[in-house]
Order: sequence, then C-alpha cells, then structure tokens
Amino acid sequence: MTEYKTGLGTSDADNIYLLGHDLAKDLMGKVSFGELAFWMATKTRPTAGQVRLFEAVLVSLADHGFTPTAIASRLTYYSAPDSLQGAIASGLLGGGSRFLGVTEDTGKFLNSKVSNVDHSGFSDSDWEDLARKVVTEANEQKLRIPGLGHPVHKQGDPRTPVIFEIAENEKVFGPHLSLFKAIGKVHPEILGKTLPLNGAGVGGAALADLGLPVDLLRGFALIARTAGLVGHLAEEQLNPIGPDVYYSVDRNAVYES
Amino acid sequence: MTEYKTGLGTSDADNIYLLGHDLAKDLMGKVSFGELAFWMATKTRPTAGQVRLFEAVLVSLADHGFTPTAIASRLTYYSAPDSLQGAIASGLLGGGSRFLGVTEDTGKFLNSKVSNVDHSGFSDSDWEDLARKVVTEANEQKLRIPGLGHPVHKQGDPRTPVIFEIAENEKVFGPHLSLFKAIGKVHPEILGKTLPLNGAGVGGAALADLGLPVDLLRGFALIARTAGLVGHLAEEQLNPIGPDVYYSVDRNAVYES
Amino acid sequence: MTEYKTGLGTSDADNIYLLGHDLAKDLMGKVSFGELAFWMATKTRPTAGQVRLFEAVLVSLADHGFTPTAIASRLTYYSAPDSLQGAIASGLLGGGSRFLGVTEDTGKFLNSKVSNVDHSGFSDSDWEDLARKVVTEANEQKLRIPGLGHPVHKQGDPRTPVIFEIAENEKVFGPHLSLFKAIGKVHPEILGKTLPLNGAGVGGAALADLGLPVDLLRGFALIARTAGLVGHLAEEQLNPIGPDVYYSVDRNAVYES
Amino acid sequence: MTEYKTGLGTSDADNIYLLGHDLAKDLMGKVSFGELAFWMATKTRPTAGQVRLFEAVLVSLADHGFTPTAIASRLTYYSAPDSLQGAIASGLLGGGSRFLGVTEDTGKFLNSKVSNVDHSGFSDSDWEDLARKVVTEANEQKLRIPGLGHPVHKQGDPRTPVIFEIAENEKVFGPHLSLFKAIGKVHPEILGKTLPLNGAGVGGAALADLGLPVDLLRGFALIARTAGLVGHLAEEQLNPIGPDVYYSVDRNAVYES
Repeated sequence: MTEYKTGLGTSDADNIYLLGHDLAKDLMGKVSFGELAFWMATKTRPTAGQVRLFEAVLVSLADHGFTPTAIASRLTYYSAPDSLQGAIASGLLGGGSRFLGVTEDTGKFLNSKVSNVDHSGFSDSDWEDLARKVVTEANEQKLRIPGLGHPVHKQGDPRTPVIFEIAENEKVFGPHLSLFKAIGKVHPEILGKTLPLNGAGVGGAALADLGLPVDLLRGFALIARTAGLVGHLAEEQLNPIGPDVYYSVDRNAVYES
Repeated sequence: MTEYKTGLGTSDADNIYLLGHDLAKDLMGKVSFGELAFWMATKTRPTAGQVRLFEAVLVSLADHGFTPTAIASRLTYYSAPDSLQGAIASGLLGGGSRFLGVTEDTGKFLNSKVSNVDHSGFSDSDWEDLARKVVTEANEQKLRIPGLGHPVHKQGDPRTPVIFEIAENEKVFGPHLSLFKAIGKVHPEILGKTLPLNGAGVGGAALADLGLPVDLLRGFALIARTAGLVGHLAEEQLNPIGPDVYYSVDRNAVYES
Repeated sequence: MTEYKTGLGTSDADNIYLLGHDLAKDLMGKVSFGELAFWMATKTRPTAGQVRLFEAVLVSLADHGFTPTAIASRLTYYSAPDSLQGAIASGLLGGGSRFLGVTEDTGKFLNSKVSNVDHSGFSDSDWEDLARKVVTEANEQKLRIPGLGHPVHKQGDPRTPVIFEIAENEKVFGPHLSLFKAIGKVHPEILGKTLPLNGAGVGGAALADLGLPVDLLRGFALIARTAGLVGHLAEEQLNPIGPDVYYSVDRNAVYES
Repeated sequence: MTEYKTGLGTSDADNIYLLGHDLAKDLMGKVSFGELAFWMATKTRPTAGQVRLFEAVLVSLADHGFTPTAIASRLTYYSAPDSLQGAIASGLLGGGSRFLGVTEDTGKFLNSKVSNVDHSGFSDSDWEDLARKVVTEANEQKLRIPGLGHPVHKQGDPRTPVIFEIAENEKVFGPHLSLFKAIGKVHPEILGKTLPLNGAGVGGAALADLGLPVDLLRGFALIARTAGLVGHLAEEQLNPIGPDVYYSVDRNAVYES
C-alpha cells in the first residue's frame, strides 16, 4: 500500500498534531497565525524577529483597494452569492504575473544573483559593485529589474523604508535585501533615471531573506490577499459595488465586429 | 460618474492608506496579520484578547492533513505547476458545505438562537434551559445540530476546551460560546447519546462571539486554510504525492457502463 | 486494493476508449461535440433530435455579453495573463445562483412539480390546470417562479418560442416544457401581471425534458459559458477592456470608514 | 464615458444578438455548439470542413479518464457539494503545463517554425527538410519537441492518424499538420529512437491550421474538458469515488518531519 508522507497535520482518536506538535496544547493560543504560516512553509519555527518581518510583509500586501482581483472577486460574489469560496478563489486567480507576481519575481531575481556569489563579509560598497553589475547586465539585455519602478509612487514607495528598518532592527537583513537596497542606490547612474524600489519587490526580498522557498513566494502574497478579499466581501455584503461595476460596463457596451 | 466606496485600501502619490490609517507608518510592524484580518472584516480594531482568540481559531483551522481540499490542491499543482494561484484556488474551492462549512454553519445556527433572546444576566442554568429547548426542537425536526459530533474524535475534540479556556481568560466568552457549551452539557439527556463538541464548531461559535459577520465565517476558515495549502504545496515541491495519488486511482480504474 | 469505476475514458497501450467505444475509430469525426457532451452526462447516446435541441440550448446560453462573469474573467486575465485556465475558472465561478443558476433552478422546480403527477395523456388544458395550481401555491407562499420574468426582455424573450418550436419539431417536447409553457399562459390571471418566460428558464425546462440530470443542469450552462469565455478572452488578447474597467473603478474610489 | 467594445453578445429590449446575428432567429437550432465556439473565438464563420475537424479535436480531448484534473474535481465536489461551478473550476485549474498544455505548446511550437518560412508550394520532401532542421536544432539545444512521445501509447497514439485523415478529407490540412507529420517521419534518424506523435499534439497542430489563435489553444482543450468534467460529476452524483480517494490517502498518511 502506498504511504503518503507529510510533516503537517496528522491525528488519532484522542490527539491532533500539527508539525509534530500537539495542536491544542502547544499551538492554539501560543503561536500567532503568522508564525504558524511561516512554520508550515519552512518546517522550521521562526524567531520572534522573523515573525515580525514576515507579518509586516503580509500586512503590506493584504489589500491595495480596488485592484483587478478585488473587483473580480466582488463581481463573482454578486453573480454567485451562494458560494463565498468561489468569490475568494475567483479573486485569488488574478494573483499572477502582472499584479501580485512582483513579490515572487523580485525574490527569485535577487536569489539568482546572490546564490552563486560568496557574499560573506560584503561591505555596502561590495553590494553596490554587485548591484552595478546586475543592473548593467539587465540593461544590456533590455530586461526590466523586478521590484524597480511604480506607476503611482514615483517618488518612493512608503512601504520600502519600513521593511528595511524592521529587517535591520530585527537583525534579519540578509543578502536579498542588501542587493535590493544597493540596486536602489546605483541604478540611476546606469539607467539615467531614478526609479523607486516598490513595496511588492521589497516584500519579496524580505521573504527570501527569511528563508522562505523562492518558488513559493507568490503563495505568501496569496495568504495576505485572502484576508484582503474577505474584507472586500464583508463590504460587498453591506454596500455592494458589483452591480454598479456591471451596469457601468454593460450599459456602455458597443458592438464592433 | 459612479463613485465606488471602500473603507479598505486607498492611496495617492505619496501615501498608502488602509482602514484610514497610514499603512507604512501605523500598521506595518505594528499590527499582527491576524489583527489586520479581523480589523478589515469588521472595520473595528480588535482588542488584544479578541486577537488572541481569533488567531487561536485560525491556528486550529489551518491544516487537518490530507483533507480532500489538500489532495485536490496537490493534484492541481502536479497537473499545472505553472500556476501556484490555481493550485491554491483549486483547494479552497473544496471549502464548502461538507468539510469546511461546519464553522459557519455552527456560528449561524447559534446566532439564530441567541439573537432574538434577551440573555443579559443569563446564568449557566439559564443557558442550559435554552440549550434544552434548542436541542429538543432540532431533535423533533430531525435536524442535526452543527458542530455536534466528530467522525474520529468521538470522546472529545481536544481543540474545544482550549477555545473555551482562551475565551474565558481573555474575557470574550459571549452568548454563542455559552449556548454551545450548554448544548454540549445537556444534549445527552435529550438525544440519549453523548457527542463531542467539535473543533470546527467551537471555532464558529468563537468567531460569532468576536462580532465577526456570521454570513462570512466561512471566509475565516478559508484564510486559515490558505496558509495550510501553502504548507502543502511547499511539501509538494520537495516530496510530491500528486503522482502517487494519480497512479493509485488511474491504474485501478475499472470500466463499468 | 480499491477499484475505481468509471464509464467514461479508459485506455490501454494500443487503444483509447470513451463510453466503451473506440475513441479514434468510432467517435472522432463521427459524433459532434454536443452529442458527446450529452452522452457523457447520461451514458445514453442521444437521438439526432435530442442533439439538436441540446445544442440549441447551449448556443442560447453561450454568451450574454458583458455579464459579471465575463467581466471577472477579463479582469483576471489582465491581472494574471500567465494563466488562461485561471481566467476561465474565475469567470465560471460566477455561474451561481443569480446569473447562471436560473437554468438549473427552473429545471428543478418544474421537475418537482411533474415528477409526482401522472401526466400521461395530459391535454393542454390539463397542463394549464396544473400550472394554475403551481402558480397559485407559489404566489401564496410568496415564492418567485424560476424562469418567469426578465429585467430587459419584458415583452418576451426571443429565445423562448424558438426552443418551444425546436422541441416540437424534433418530437422531444415533454412534461417540463409543457408545464413551463402553461405557466406562461395562465400566470397573468393569478399574478395580475404578464411576465415573459425567459430564455435561461426555457433552457432548463428543455434540458430536463431531454433526460439530463436535474441536479446537474448548471453544468450544461457552464459548458456553454466556457466557450463564451474563450471568445471573450480572444477579444481581450486583441483589444482589452480589463485595464479600462480597473481604472474606472480605482480612479473613482472614495474612502468611507 | 468609457465605451466597451465587443463583437460577441449584445441586446436591446426586443432582440438578442451574438456575433452580429440574431441569436434566436439565425443561430439557435441552425449552428452546432462547436461551430459557435469556433466562430466566437475567430469572429469568422467556419466552413463545414473546419467544423468537422474542430469538433473531432474537441471530442479527442474531452476525457481521458481519471486524470489529476478529474480526480481533483471529484474531490472538490465531495468536499463542497453545494457548488457545482466550484468543482468544475477546480478541475479546469489543472489544465496547465503538464497535462492539458501539450495542445497549446505544440501549436505554438509549430507556429514559431512555419510562420517565418515561405512554404507555399512545399512538397512532402520540403516539409521533411524543414522537419530535419527543426528536430536537429531542438536536439542540439536539448529541448523536447512538444507533441512527440507518450507515456502509454508508445507504438502510436490512435488519435493521430484519424486527425490527419479528417484534415485531409476536409481539405484543411495546412502547414502546422504538415510539419508535425514530417517531424513524425524524420525524427528517428536524428534522435536515434522512434517516438509517437501524440493526440494532444496533433490536436494543437490541427487547431493552429484551423486559424485559431495560437495563444488561446489551451482554451479549446478547456472547453472540451468542461464537458468531460460534467460527465465525471454526473458519475460522482450516482457512484462517488471521492470518499474512497480521500480515505486511501488519509488513512495511509505517515508523519515525517
């Protein structure tokens, strides 16, 4: 008989275990939800400092107002109020390359640049040298650097310095944040213009520094966004916008073959 | 021009607001992710005690091992590894009436019994009287009481006393938990058998006592489960079970017209 | 070892079977896609007349322009262009009680009224008597009759007479369509106003008369809608509306606590 | 006011139009569902021969038994029987790169090879020369050729010759099928082994030859699969396998940290 291995939830008649711990006695009321989410993804219990940075990133990603995903979720709820899970899933499905993907893209990009470099003992100026190399290469290949630039916050994304500060204070500032910060400093001399380091990107750098799997970073943005979508659907129950969005499109439809 | 109202995220060129607060200065690093999720759903900042009970419920619901939703999510990821959001959405879509619905069903059921009763000053014995009435009615109508009974934890669900205890310690034990606890005490004399109060049910009672919208309780189970699914997909990346599940079904397929 | 039974697809090294037939030799190029969809759902090969009515219903349900589901699907594609399947799933999730559910609701409602009545040999006037009883009962219980009424086509839904005519010509006009037609005739004398029999409702009546499972009628609306959504996404690839919908909402957002 | 353009469904109080035609008078009962799906995706009414090949491809892709997508859909329905649309969406989300993606991958691959070559007047031997070049290049770059090879049908996929034959008979055999067929002939001399041209791949080649958008080919596989999933859910309603799959995994779970 095939066995199926897991390090997450198991149970017997009297006990429920999660991560090998007694769920009721050892976890409920004793770990925050953010701590548990981190622990389940890495199988390693995070430190208090790691949890603080992790939860700050989740908070930063939870809601950005009327994004395409929030609007899609509200329209789906309007169309199918019988299925809350369907409305949430519908919204999460927009968590892809254009809007929610920056977090993972940035983390992966930075990881590909730091994972084959011996950066132990790197000074700020060493990071800036590496950043110059990375930006120059991307520029020559006409590739955009993920996490650099923002359509609205052109003078600086207010989330970025806060993440740097928390990481520094909690002593979890690692190579991904270091390279990202250095890119923010040196790119104007190479690109000839100054772009902000955006909040989704710095979130990805922070998650990578926390040791979360870089191929899974989109998943943490989705955890955060699920809470945001529940907030949107709470509003939609009381004061729906779905019908107005629908009418504004449907009544302005023009046939064109 | 139609205006679209929201009390969640808004922004201008220099600032990002969430819930009317400055996201970067006032929220990131200062509120836990669980606190934010609660706040977004109710528009009222929770107390520390409310947050502790809320996060304990999320922790209790985050993962129950190889549920149908976890297996579906892993199979979807195996089939479409190009879309993490699709695998998570696929799993959440199982968050319906049979497996994840108990939380909301219990909260709604209890709410329908306490919302039209003046229970200020109720003693334990008053709650037990109400519980007797509720159980008797359900029994006469041959209706199951949501949250009562468990297929595995027949002698008691270990999560239930912990939720009661946290709610009591944090002084957030309200009418839904009171009635639920009383149902646990009196039902054997009416039904002629002793059933456990299950953990999904007590979670629903607790969420309702916290003032979360009873028509949205399923949403909190889904937030919790999203974190669980990210944990499952982290395992699936390292040590997949999807192929084994697939082969075990496909190779034992038997045609029957 | 558990065996898993299916009457759908099976295969061995040399052959692929579907519904017990050789897929390549007996089905491909020989049955229409609509015929196959019907056959898979019922395990009974439909007649040519049944196929014609079935495909006419699918055609009638395939697209209704900028419905909430189509808009949600386009927004999701804009947000996550990396996953076409996610955009389609996002749209289908709106196929619930309010917009796409009428088909199933009507089929089920009619089925509940005809399945316990011996209607063999019913004349038109017998159907009208039954319809009077059904409408009167619903009216007394303040229930809306599914399939009756339309927000736009108040003077009559043009799809309805076409479905009646095809069913009649193909000799597949059964009890569900008979009762639905009779309801259309007699309801003004009871309700005091004249409402149209809508196209989604007559589709549900037709599918029920075709012997398709009444608990699965929503599924056929979803098959039809999948084709419609692919059409919308083909347009979105060439001439997207997603960004405009997003901006029209986001730029008219107003904060309200 | 923003206008939203569409060439699909529009309506006014008295009429419903689809593709600029009167839905009730001109389409229902007059075009097959497959014809409509083709027409909506291309905005060009297909010929009878094109429809026959298109529907044969849909038929070939509709169901392959207990695929991961079918199992996921059944598990989701078991877990959330309140939402048929959720179960179908859950299954479609597996329509990604590994299982259902071959159709689109093959169409795109062939398209990238034929779109910049003047192949008017190509003889069979010209196609074989091009195929040798394509296979050699892929081999040098260690890339797999999409549509070549099958885990079960190692001696030949029975669907492939049928698609070739229908395309030939209907005079819609174009450059994509020509190159694909030639690859099937010449690859053994380059790769040193003989692989079958698989059915999903030949379907993609055929859809590309039919003029369907190559970036949307996955969508047609999803239309086909929606019908297959409705068939699976019809079986699941009568004779569920969901509980057995769940138990077989859950009861054989082994904790491993």
